[in-house]
Amino acid sequence: MPVLSETTLRVRYAETDAMGIVHHAVYPVWMELGRSDLLRSMGQGYAEWEAQGYMMAVSSIELTYRAPARYDELVTVRTRVAEVRTRQTRFAYEVVGPAGQRLAVGETTHVCTDRAGRVTSLPASLRDLLSSG
Amino acid sequence: MPVLSETTLRVRYAETDAMGIVHHAVYPVWMELGRSDLLRSMGQGYAEWEAQGYMMAVSSIELTYRAPARYDELVTVRTRVAEVRTRQTRFAYEVVGPAGQRLAVGETTHVCTDRAGRVTSLPASLRDLLSSG
Amino acid sequence: MPVLSETTLRVRYAETDAMGIVHHAVYPVWMELGRSDLLRSMGQGYAEWEAQGYMMAVSSIELTYRAPARYDELVTVRTRVAEVRTRQTRFAYEVVGPAGQRLAVGETTHVCTDRAGRVTSLPASLRDLLSSG
Amino acid sequence: MPVLSETTLRVRYAETDAMGIVHHAVYPVWMELGRSDLLRSMGQGYAEWEAQGYMMAVSSIELTYRAPARYDELVTVRTRVAEVRTRQTRFAYEVVGPAGQRLAVGETTHVCTDRAGRVTSLPASLRDLLSSG
Repeated sequence: MPVLSETTLRVRYAETDAMGIVHHAVYPVWMELGRSDLLRSMGQGYAEWEAQGYMMAVSSIELTYRAPARYDELVTVRTRVAEVRTRQTRFAYEVVGPAGQRLAVGETTHVCTDRAGRVTSLPASLRDLLSSG
Repeated sequence: MPVLSETTLRVRYAETDAMGIVHHAVYPVWMELGRSDLLRSMGQGYAEWEAQGYMMAVSSIELTYRAPARYDELVTVRTRVAEVRTRQTRFAYEVVGPAGQRLAVGETTHVCTDRAGRVTSLPASLRDLLSSG
Repeated sequence: MPVLSETTLRVRYAETDAMGIVHHAVYPVWMELGRSDLLRSMGQGYAEWEAQGYMMAVSSIELTYRAPARYDELVTVRTRVAEVRTRQTRFAYEVVGPAGQRLAVGETTHVCTDRAGRVTSLPASLRDLLSSG
Repeated sequence: MPVLSETTLRVRYAETDAMGIVHHAVYPVWMELGRSDLLRSMGQGYAEWEAQGYMMAVSSIELTYRAPARYDELVTVRTRVAEVRTRQTRFAYEVVGPAGQRLAVGETTHVCTDRAGRVTSLPASLRDLLSSG
């Protein structure tokens, strides 16, 4: 069972801004990509969660930026489950650059909702799945 | 009845790229904003269309870029209905900069779909509405 | 001197995701818009900062999401300067929905850099300007 | 020498909209990714172009959407050089879904500019490079 998933992506030109570096609002998108890959590698992709009627709404995000990323660089997002509770799940992320340097670290917390957006408990099966990571 | 709607927006930093100008993929988003304002000004916003079960899927887009836009500039999107047919609607756009210079011109065509994404005829009421513009 | 700036924006269709609500990575873009408006209202827009050779790189972001925003809604970002120091500036944000409900609260911290991206002290003139808010 | 480059990417949640499908403004970003990969595979990535002082500004785009893409799907962008002239370069794209179905076809034209954004002739070396594809 993977404790950690690694997602490598190439920086898109559209992700840069007039400072010549990746815009800070792009990192949450990369972290979501990492989370998506982690869930898939744990045996049940997020698309299947949704098909079963469970959504993972983001309830908070924290991000510290350490160094900039630039167009065309290969960037790696390392994602792991940090905490699983009935009402809240927490993921931790590290974004590293092509030379292994740390670009950003962050966390997201999530609540489980049903299709109508109502907060609900994370079902035991998904809690077990996440806890195995 | 407005033949034309004008939408003024301020260029966001996140919309620029490493060339120091607005990324070309942002213009379709601005044109959608113009279309949205045009429909609202014609008496029935797109949110109401969707509430009634009608979606306007984009079937094609054409855009010519003439001059760049930059961070913090006020840009205006002029939108008009170019053609209304049972199976297809066409909108035309002009994006102008703070000094009135033409930044881009473009067109989009749309098909009407139901909630399941199936192409359907544009209902007479919406066809009449669009034809009045 | 405004202590607070208010930015009202209409939710773009492109800002929504398959959950039918605004994607969480859009909020940092809205907060940047608020920051941009606040600086302009204080007498010196961020474009002028850059023209003078000072960049405000985002060094961290924190965001708590309380309620979703939806397409076409009018959303207001309230921005204020939370702390000004030689090496770091902090802004606080509140995003409220059309009925005045709180959608999100957050903070960003920034370091001042020169054109080459090197961290530098915030010049006294800009420090004074920010402190007046 | 590759006549065609293929870029496979996984649809990001952030790329979907409230219709439950990929927003149409995402396709130009994917096409740019394809163009970027094509240039790299031809021996000189676009980052090197820029380092040499040559920018490829997009002067027009055309896109026809045939079928929707959805979250988590693997999508492939096929990119080829369609025309190389002193003043203009044209690329053609095909976006195909996981089952090989055509999602979109499109073209972009580009002019070569210098660092200041002035249109210039494409240097012979880059013209030769592109013509070899």
